[in-house]
Amino acid sequence: MNGADALIRTFAECGVRTCFANPGTSEMHLVAALDREPRIRSMLCLFEGVATGAADGYARMTGRPAMTLLHLGPGYLNGAANLHNARRAFAPTINVIGDHATYHRHLDAPLTSDIEALVKPLAAWTDVAAAAADAGPKAAAAYAASLGPPGGNAFLLLPADAAWSEGGALAKPLALPGAERPKNLETVARAIKAARKPAILVSGDALVEPGLTHAARLHAAGVLVLNDTFAARQRRGGAHFAPLRLPYFAEQTLETLQGVDLLITAGTKHPVAFFAYPGRPSELTPEGATRLSLGGPEVSSAAALEALAEMLRAPAQAKSPAASKPAAPGGPLTPEAVGATLARHLPEDCIIADDSVTAGLVLFPATAGAASHDWLFHTGGAIGQGLPMSIGAAVGAPERKVIALCGDGAAMYTVQSLWTMAREALDITIVVFANRLYRILMIELARTGAGTAGPAAMSMLSLDNPALDWVKMAEAHGVEAVRTERAEDFDREFARLVARPGPTLIEAVV
Amino acid sequence: MNGADALIRTFAECGVRTCFANPGTSEMHLVAALDREPRIRSMLCLFEGVATGAADGYARMTGRPAMTLLHLGPGYLNGAANLHNARRAFAPTINVIGDHATYHRHLDAPLTSDIEALVKPLAAWTDVAAAAADAGPKAAAAYAASLGPPGGNAFLLLPADAAWSEGGALAKPLALPGAERPKNLETVARAIKAARKPAILVSGDALVEPGLTHAARLHAAGVLVLNDTFAARQRRGGAHFAPLRLPYFAEQTLETLQGVDLLITAGTKHPVAFFAYPGRPSELTPEGATRLSLGGPEVSSAAALEALAEMLRAPAQAKSPAASKPAAPGGPLTPEAVGATLARHLPEDCIIADDSVTAGLVLFPATAGAASHDWLFHTGGAIGQGLPMSIGAAVGAPERKVIALCGDGAAMYTVQSLWTMAREALDITIVVFANRLYRILMIELARTGAGTAGPAAMSMLSLDNPALDWVKMAEAHGVEAVRTERAEDFDREFARLVARPGPTLIEAVV
Repeated sequence: MNGADALIRTFAECGVRTCFANPGTSEMHLVAALDREPRIRSMLCLFEGVATGAADGYARMTGRPAMTLLHLGPGYLNGAANLHNARRAFAPTINVIGDHATYHRHLDAPLTSDIEALVKPLAAWTDVAAAAADAGPKAAAAYAASLGPPGGNAFLLLPADAAWSEGGALAKPLALPGAERPKNLETVARAIKAARKPAILVSGDALVEPGLTHAARLHAAGVLVLNDTFAARQRRGGAHFAPLRLPYFAEQTLETLQGVDLLITAGTKHPVAFFAYPGRPSELTPEGATRLSLGGPEVSSAAALEALAEMLRAPAQAKSPAASKPAAPGGPLTPEAVGATLARHLPEDCIIADDSVTAGLVLFPATAGAASHDWLFHTGGAIGQGLPMSIGAAVGAPERKVIALCGDGAAMYTVQSLWTMAREALDITIVVFANRLYRILMIELARTGAGTAGPAAMSMLSLDNPALDWVKMAEAHGVEAVRTERAEDFDREFARLVARPGPTLIEAVV
Repeated sequence: MNGADALIRTFAECGVRTCFANPGTSEMHLVAALDREPRIRSMLCLFEGVATGAADGYARMTGRPAMTLLHLGPGYLNGAANLHNARRAFAPTINVIGDHATYHRHLDAPLTSDIEALVKPLAAWTDVAAAAADAGPKAAAAYAASLGPPGGNAFLLLPADAAWSEGGALAKPLALPGAERPKNLETVARAIKAARKPAILVSGDALVEPGLTHAARLHAAGVLVLNDTFAARQRRGGAHFAPLRLPYFAEQTLETLQGVDLLITAGTKHPVAFFAYPGRPSELTPEGATRLSLGGPEVSSAAALEALAEMLRAPAQAKSPAASKPAAPGGPLTPEAVGATLARHLPEDCIIADDSVTAGLVLFPATAGAASHDWLFHTGGAIGQGLPMSIGAAVGAPERKVIALCGDGAAMYTVQSLWTMAREALDITIVVFANRLYRILMIELARTGAGTAGPAAMSMLSLDNPALDWVKMAEAHGVEAVRTERAEDFDREFARLVARPGPTLIEAVV
């Protein structure tokens, strides 16, 4: 067995079922090995950022890593921004990168680069299988390492000669450690009892069931339950308990936290501003409040909440009554009107892949009363996450409808995603918010004190001149699309397209 | 003056005239500073790989660096593959990356990453302007460093607080060292006289005038003059001397070099295979041949050739007679037919930005007898270079027609380029070779000994199902386009579109 077969078959043994790929010459033996391994389904992406973002979305929905197949240093670099987002989501991913043959690297051929140095800042784990015999064991190690806890990006480099040489062998899957349990629960419980306004900021599995039910008990016991602005995944809508989400803008978070004298964290860390602004604080825990931590992303926040609820003898929280649906919106299309349509028509148990930037500020609260769904947030701030993430979610949860909400600027970053959706007939409805502007930057220009935009600045913030035609864009990639400019049209088209299987796109001119 | 103004104004003093930008919140003060600096023209790119590839093309045509404006680690990562290509072209680029405020970084907000570690493998020079007072002097240093020699990627990181704080000051441009002169000319001249079959492999300024004229003299003196497979830029066509280009496939290079007993290099290094293949050599200098070097990319290869020609008392080479134009092609469209059309209709003094992968194997020899033009090669093997490079060439040489030759797989990597071309009304004609295949990989699968493609492998090499619609793709971005499937139609449409100003695209279904 050659090294490539040993690597691919070991991954299959461990449980890898999906490969998002954009291979090159140095990965040809891996491609041939995938041909021989029916347990792993390979999907071609026309840009590596699609493959890595898809691996993130897949991991968020399944809890398991997909593998990506990337071509040398540049292939990794093209996919790295979405691996940055995956890292911030603590999503397990396995990234297999072909490198030059070991004896070829020192010759510094055109595609040579220091891949190990390039991946290190984004890696939870990295290693090189320099010989065929290493490929199996290191594949098993990569699988386990990706799952942490917490989950992270594992990188396994396979030089071409290790891929094509004989001497590989299948390795056994390693035992996987579970999430850690916090040790300071009694201290925290005592502090809650003593506090005037205790609050707990949660992320991780506290944001899906049964974590939310435990969180609801703490809420019933008088604890303000908050969630991170950008979590990996949150179950919401329907009768699910909704923690209070920390706002994106730091000054609003400070307001939200006013009066809190105890801030506990579980599955996350204490809140900091997304960016620094002149004369404003970067750390957002209220001054004078006591900080306690039940652990970061390496712990099960759901288990911590459950134990804490028991200790506090917290009552069960009464189920929230189902929210009434808003009326059909009308008039010119706005993010608010889109929010009303989503609240009306989100199908039960759908998945939202959110890359909607400014529109999202409105959409998230507007959909609190929608049918039950999972919301996948943009975790790392690198736009271009929504379309790829929706691919991974659709592959990982094929029986569920996925809805990608994307700003036009964000969607352009990984627009090649549309082709993979068409090819794989993935059940995704895309809404592109065509405001023809990096609108968030118009806001940030003022907030950073940089002043108002003159002509040169405006040319760098506007996406107009020419306006992108999202209907032609989608059709060019094989995806059916419509454009809407009125709220009533958007409401009708969204309801129509979301009821159909396969990928479709609505350009929402807002 | 704040740090951002000091940085931008110092760049303008040094001679920077162009900024290819995709800014974010941490670059807002730089955007405002660009608003106040009329000497630098800013152009928005909808993906960072477009900005960096454009900077490469600009540098190749002007010899001067453009600046790019990138948003934190992810913005850099999105642009890094084309910086890899720029590095292999020894093209000077200045990349300004905004970072979090110095006091904000340790909080590890979502967009934080170790930017210094990430840029290092691609950097000729990197520094952080941690205070406003550093911004001017470090900008002047970045400008000089980018020019080398050899040229390279300079990275200047500007934390947000250094950008917005007062205390910046304009810095004076630094003195720029010229290219080095080789010291071993006499040894080399003696070796040439003693050799049976001397050859010289050149890159750099030997491939533009007057370097080519000096190269022709060496040819006339009996030296086999070769050029690198992928040089940054070559002047060719018309009456220009054409060195013999080393073929892409290693076994063909070995054939080309057969019998060579002395291999001199000037402006480059001794030839190595692009990839390793089982059982084949990676170093391509013939066994037993003497190797001598007149210096790598840090020397002026043109000056070295001139001095060598003088020492050898080489005669002037007679001008080559103008090649006769091929007849109008007909029948189904093929790369060969496209080559004939290019030979017939390339406008005098145009620029070719080449990302045509397999089609390029045919197009380059086919255009040897075309009108005089500059050919910009794909230097680093990271596809997605052609469209961005054509933007930079068009901005750097606005009076000249640019022709981008792109494989469909390659064009998809940085398809967002089309929008910047439309917005800036750049004079670019694009040919997309729609073979709906990563055809090079079909060849490489066999060459690496990985066998023939089964269904899973084939799905990772084919771009069909669905076929991309390049006419809609171009129109979606605001660029006019036509599709051609017959050689006579391509010939007519190319002649028509190349005669018109502004961006246009021809989908060549081959």
